[in-house]
Order: sequence, then C-alpha cells, then structure tokens
Amino acid sequence: MKKMNCLVAQSGGPTAAINASLAGVIDAAIKSNSFHTIYGSINGIQGVLQHKIIALNETFEKNEQAVHTLMTSPAMYLGSCRYKLPDYKDNEEQYNFIFETFRQMDIHAFFYIGGNDSMDTVDKLSQYAKTINYDISIIGIPKTIDNDLMETDHTPGFGSAAKFVATSMLEISHDTYIYDIESVTIVEIMGRDAGWLTAASALARNDYSHAPDLIYLPERDFSTFQFINDLNLLLKKNKNVIVAVSEGIHDSDGNYISASKASADKFGHMQLSGTGKALEHLVKSTIGCKVRSIELNVLQRSAMHISSLTDINEAFLLGTEAVKAAEMGLSSIMLTLNRESQKPYKVSVGNVAVSDVANAAKAVPLEWINDAGNDVTDDMITYLRPLIEGEPHIRYKNGIPDYLSIKHLI
Amino acid sequence: MKKMNCLVAQSGGPTAAINASLAGVIDAAIKSNSFHTIYGSINGIQGVLQHKIIALNETFEKNEQAVHTLMTSPAMYLGSCRYKLPDYKDNEEQYNFIFETFRQMDIHAFFYIGGNDSMDTVDKLSQYAKTINYDISIIGIPKTIDNDLMETDHTPGFGSAAKFVATSMLEISHDTYIYDIESVTIVEIMGRDAGWLTAASALARNDYSHAPDLIYLPERDFSTFQFINDLNLLLKKNKNVIVAVSEGIHDSDGNYISASKASADKFGHMQLSGTGKALEHLVKSTIGCKVRSIELNVLQRSAMHISSLTDINEAFLLGTEAVKAAEMGLSSIMLTLNRESQKPYKVSVGNVAVSDVANAAKAVPLEWINDAGNDVTDDMITYLRPLIEGEPHIRYKNGIPDYLSIKHLI
Repeated sequence: MKKMNCLVAQSGGPTAAINASLAGVIDAAIKSNSFHTIYGSINGIQGVLQHKIIALNETFEKNEQAVHTLMTSPAMYLGSCRYKLPDYKDNEEQYNFIFETFRQMDIHAFFYIGGNDSMDTVDKLSQYAKTINYDISIIGIPKTIDNDLMETDHTPGFGSAAKFVATSMLEISHDTYIYDIESVTIVEIMGRDAGWLTAASALARNDYSHAPDLIYLPERDFSTFQFINDLNLLLKKNKNVIVAVSEGIHDSDGNYISASKASADKFGHMQLSGTGKALEHLVKSTIGCKVRSIELNVLQRSAMHISSLTDINEAFLLGTEAVKAAEMGLSSIMLTLNRESQKPYKVSVGNVAVSDVANAAKAVPLEWINDAGNDVTDDMITYLRPLIEGEPHIRYKNGIPDYLSIKHLI
Repeated sequence: MKKMNCLVAQSGGPTAAINASLAGVIDAAIKSNSFHTIYGSINGIQGVLQHKIIALNETFEKNEQAVHTLMTSPAMYLGSCRYKLPDYKDNEEQYNFIFETFRQMDIHAFFYIGGNDSMDTVDKLSQYAKTINYDISIIGIPKTIDNDLMETDHTPGFGSAAKFVATSMLEISHDTYIYDIESVTIVEIMGRDAGWLTAASALARNDYSHAPDLIYLPERDFSTFQFINDLNLLLKKNKNVIVAVSEGIHDSDGNYISASKASADKFGHMQLSGTGKALEHLVKSTIGCKVRSIELNVLQRSAMHISSLTDINEAFLLGTEAVKAAEMGLSSIMLTLNRESQKPYKVSVGNVAVSDVANAAKAVPLEWINDAGNDVTDDMITYLRPLIEGEPHIRYKNGIPDYLSIKHLI
C-alpha cells in the first residue's frame, strides 16, 4: 500500500488538552503504516493559506519523551487562528489554493483540532473535497473549555479548565475564611453563552467548605434584585459568602451585566471591566460589606500545571482515534466522547457528521440548575466529577514547568 | 523540669507557607519536653482578646499525616486578623487582659507567624512582658509573599508566590504566542511598595519564551511616556509583548497609576486595584493594537497546589527553630533566614531583635533593576531562582487538593 501524507492543525482558543490531541495524532500516525510525512500547519488553516507548513516526524519519531512533553504542554504547539473560510460558492480562490497545496504535498488526511468555528472549517473543506472529487479524510477533533459542542458527552479541555476552576475556588475559600469579618467574594468564570465551567466551581465543595455559596449561569436570566436578596439571606447565616458567576450572565432583556457604567477614574476615563467588577460595585453600594471580585481569566484555559489526567488522556485518545478513522477512509466527521458508564466512569469514542456540530452550541440543561437559579443540582455534580479526576505528571526545570514550544510562534 | 504551655497564632495576609510554619511549631512542641499543652489562638491576637483559644495536641499528636497535610494547606489554619495593638502607655487594658489570660493558662511561650504588622505585635507584647516581669518567650516567625521584611534573606511565603507568578507568566506566554497578530498583554502582580514578586516573573523566561518582555517595579518611578516608548520599540521586533507590573507602580510625584478606588486601610496602606486595567486603556488609546490585562489576584498567595518545596520546607524549619528558641529562653526576636551559600543553595536560621524589623520594609535594591527601569538584572535572577525550586507532594481527593481546615472559621 502506497503511503500518503497527513496534515494536522489547531484552531480557536487554547486549552490545556489540545496538545494532547496533537500528540495522539502524531503518535498514532508515526506508528501506523499509512502515513509517510506528518505535516503540521502553523496557525491553523491560515498556515495552509500562507504556506507555513512544517514536517513533524523528525521532532517526534523515536522520541517518546517529546510526545509526552507535548501531551502536557498548554495552548497550541502549532499556533492557532480565528479564521472563518468563506463559502466556496462565493469565493473559490482559497479552496483552490488549499487543495492545490494538498495535492502537491500528497496530503490525504487532515486533522483539525478545535471548537465550533473550527468544525465549520472541517465541514466546508469536506464539502469542497467532494465537489472536486479529491480523496481526503477530513476529521474534526473537538476541544473547548466551554464544553458547549453538540453530540459529545463533553469536550477535551473542559475537564482541565474545570479542575483549575474548582481548585482555585477551594483556595479562594481558604483565603477568604481566615478573616472574622463579613465579606462577599465574587469569582468571574469564563463562559459567554454556556455555564458549564462556572458550574464546575461546585466541585470545590468538600466537608469543610461550602464555597461557592451561589452559582449563576447564563442559561438563566440574572436579576440584580434577586442576587442582592440571595446575598442578604446568606449573610444572616454565614460570615463569608462566595459567589461564582459566568462572564455571560445577562438580564431578562439579554443585556450583559457589565461595569461600563462604573465610575470614571481621575483622568475621566471610563473604567471598563467585567461582570465580577460590576457586581462588586453593586454589592458595595447596596450591602456595603467588604467585597472583592476575582476574574480567573486566561489561566482557566492555560494552567496545564493543574490539568486533569482524565481530560489529557481522553484528548490523546481522540488524537489516536482520528488517525484510525482516517485510515478507515472516514471523512466529514467530528469524533465524540460517549459516556458508557458512570461508576466506574468509562467513555467510548464515536463520531458524528460534522455538519451536525458546526456553528451550534450546547447549553446547560435547565433541569441541572436549581429552581432558584442560584445553584446547580446533584445531577450536574455527578456529571462533572469524573472529568477532573487525576493529575498528569508534569516535569519541572528550574522551578517552573518544562513545556514544549516551537520558535515559529514567538 | 515543670512543663509549661505555649500558644501559637497567625496574622496578616495569607500565604501558601504560613501553615508550614504552624506545622513546624506544633511538630517541634509535641516532640519537645518543655511543653504540655499547645494552644492555638483563632484569628491572631484577636483570638486571645476574645478568648477563642483551642488546644491543638489532640488533632496533631501521633498524627504525622495531619502535620503533613497542614504543611501543604494554604492560608491560615488558625485564621488571621489585621489588628494593631494600641501603645500600652495609651491603653493598658488589652495588655492586662492578654497577660492575665497567659497567666491563667500557664502560657510562657508565644509564637506569632506574620509580616511587618505582626512583628509590631510581637514587639509591643515583648516590651510589656518586661515591664510586668512576666516570664515569656515571644518569638516572631516571618511570612509574607511581599518578601519585604528587614534582616532576613527572604521570607517564607514568597518562594511559593514567586513560583505561582513565574508559572502563570509562562502559561500566559503559551496562551499569547499562539495568535499571529500584534498584541500587548499586561500582567498585574501584587506588591504595594516592594517589587520582589513582580521581579519573580522573570523566572518564567526559558530557552523559548522571553516573557515578560518588560518589568516595572514600584522602586522606580513609572513614566507612561517611557512605557509606551518601550512598547513601541519592542513591537518593531516582536509580535507579542508581555509586560509584568507591580500593582504599586507610581509616577514621579508618587501618584499611583491607578488609585481611583484607593482608600487607606487600618494601617494606613493604600488599597490598590486596577493598575493593569489603567495601562490596558492607555495602550488601547495610544498604540491601538490588541491589548489585554490580567490581574493574578489572591491566587498569588493561596495557590498551594503550585507552591515551592524549598519555601514550604524553610517555613516548617522556622517553626521548629522557634520552639528551640523559646526553650532557650529567647524573646523579642524574629527568626531570620540567612543564605549561607548560593551553589549549592543553603540557608541557616538566625534571629534579630524584633524592634529592628517591625514597621519597616525592605525594597528591591536599585542596582538589581536595569538602567532603563524596565527589567531586572542577572543578580536578581540569581537571588530568586533557588527560592522556587521543588514541588511538595499535594494529596488530591475527588480531583481537588486535600487540604486541612477547621470549622471554627467558616
């Protein structure tokens, strides 16, 4: 059987697990008999359009350590892009260029690791390949910390972000409980439209810490009146109240809660900041106790040092399964994780037509939010718990993690 | 020899290492022949004034695991306070109450783990004990993430905070380098008056990452004009520029860069917030490229899961040495860490009169900042590097760290 070449690329926002999927693709492609050269495109599909394509074999062949270090390195080894291909019916030029490149480089498998928008790219390229009868397997490998991809039980990257959020929430509770004064702490968590990651803060609760005391997700309208009411009720019982909010919470008219109307600084500049800051101002002006807001920020998606072993292993598995799917000649699909059993936790890998996934988003089911709209249910906890289990071995060098990176990006 | 009782308490802001010192005190006091009951005061000296004192023996005697878990638990097991004792010449009532409590409970050693303000408490209580001829050893055990205590090479808590800052900076660089667009990322790091922790961000640099590209400490006046100039020069060479700034940077008139929400706390310290945000707005309005600010926030001081083994071990050592110092009848002292050698890194424990330490702060030496005022020197790196070495073993349970806490605080 004649060997062909394959191409892999990464796209969208970073996660701790996206390089584990890349490592899975590389490892399986090296070990398979189907592929000659494994190419990587720098900065996603943009790298193909700009001819920034490198061969990966030399770096990773016969180097298990490099594969393992890649598995435990955050963000994208190959860089990313946020580029949406035009419809080929409107503009065929880019498609011509991409497939001419594939032809010249003998590329007959393309693995694209990404979220909703990246699956749109997989979908469009798959459709175009059919129209020109170009023989290629185009496989989408899911990732997103938002956990909002359709048709998969959960997404690689989410478990690690969830573990960072839960661990940070627990550490924030230790930080907060030490003072014998009334306080409100508001922790702002990523998630513009889906509340999965904010829900994961509930995993911080243990036999001594009830934090977060309140959880607000974007799937339910947010009422500032109800929020202050919730706080006042809790402050009668507890000295310290800790709140988890999605950055994307909004009122019943769909307006985001943000601090755009907050006070101007001494130069007269408006202080534009996030949801947490807005609520901080609100609590200060209504309740008046000590209040602090904390934005977990980009560390949620890049803190590999506190990643979930379950997540990293599943991301790697999807990489290897993508190679198998290409060898079987499948195309236009996104791989999925299906939960086979809860106790013990077990997943299998499946696949769906990528057109069923692209440009859609999976919200938190309303029945997993409590009636009051300020907490999640036990079913949510049961769903989330296994995803953050286990700690991968991270190597350290000079006191900091020893990650893998390529100079091309810097 | 008749056994006496001892008391230990914690005060000031949390760190990842302050419970390791508590564990050291408890471990050494249990193993010594000098002490009968080991008491802990809840919420620092306030706990003595409010009679919130508990015996610690039962929890920790014959329980090495509890001692180890305490060593690797963030913030303060016994809670904290920010309480400044009045001068006894102005108000003797509280001193009467404290020493009457000591007398009744047969307490003849008091270990106070804290920063500058806590050393003020050690100093005042020591002086008062002399005036009333009460036989007690009062020993200060240093801690602060700010590393700004006089007379000690460095402070417990700093190394762990520094490791969190350096690791986060490295992970932020991975997050930033993936996009092929011009960007400025500003990381705001704790440090009102001293730039030690911001300087530690330089430890993130490795053979592929030059982040942070610019470092600004409060020891040098900050010029917004020079800052924009520095950025423009770097943006000609690099696509992504990552900046580390202390929250306490100020202009040549002493005005904080963002003091819009400043208000003095009980000790007269300014509460800062939003330096990163202020610079983000400045860059947006002058340079106009993609810009993001990240506030590392309280995780700097409570992220035990990425603490420094060197730091935790030294903090524990100081706890055990404090017990020895009390057994030797020393008082009115703060223990210090003295760097005996750099290669291999080695410290010894010494002590100084607490009056030499209280209410003073150690700034970064100006010769460890480069001439341009936008980076630190190699001498600074050499000083910092050993402090973040090593990773303690953290136990996990249900995917989150298994820390120790007492219900008294919640």
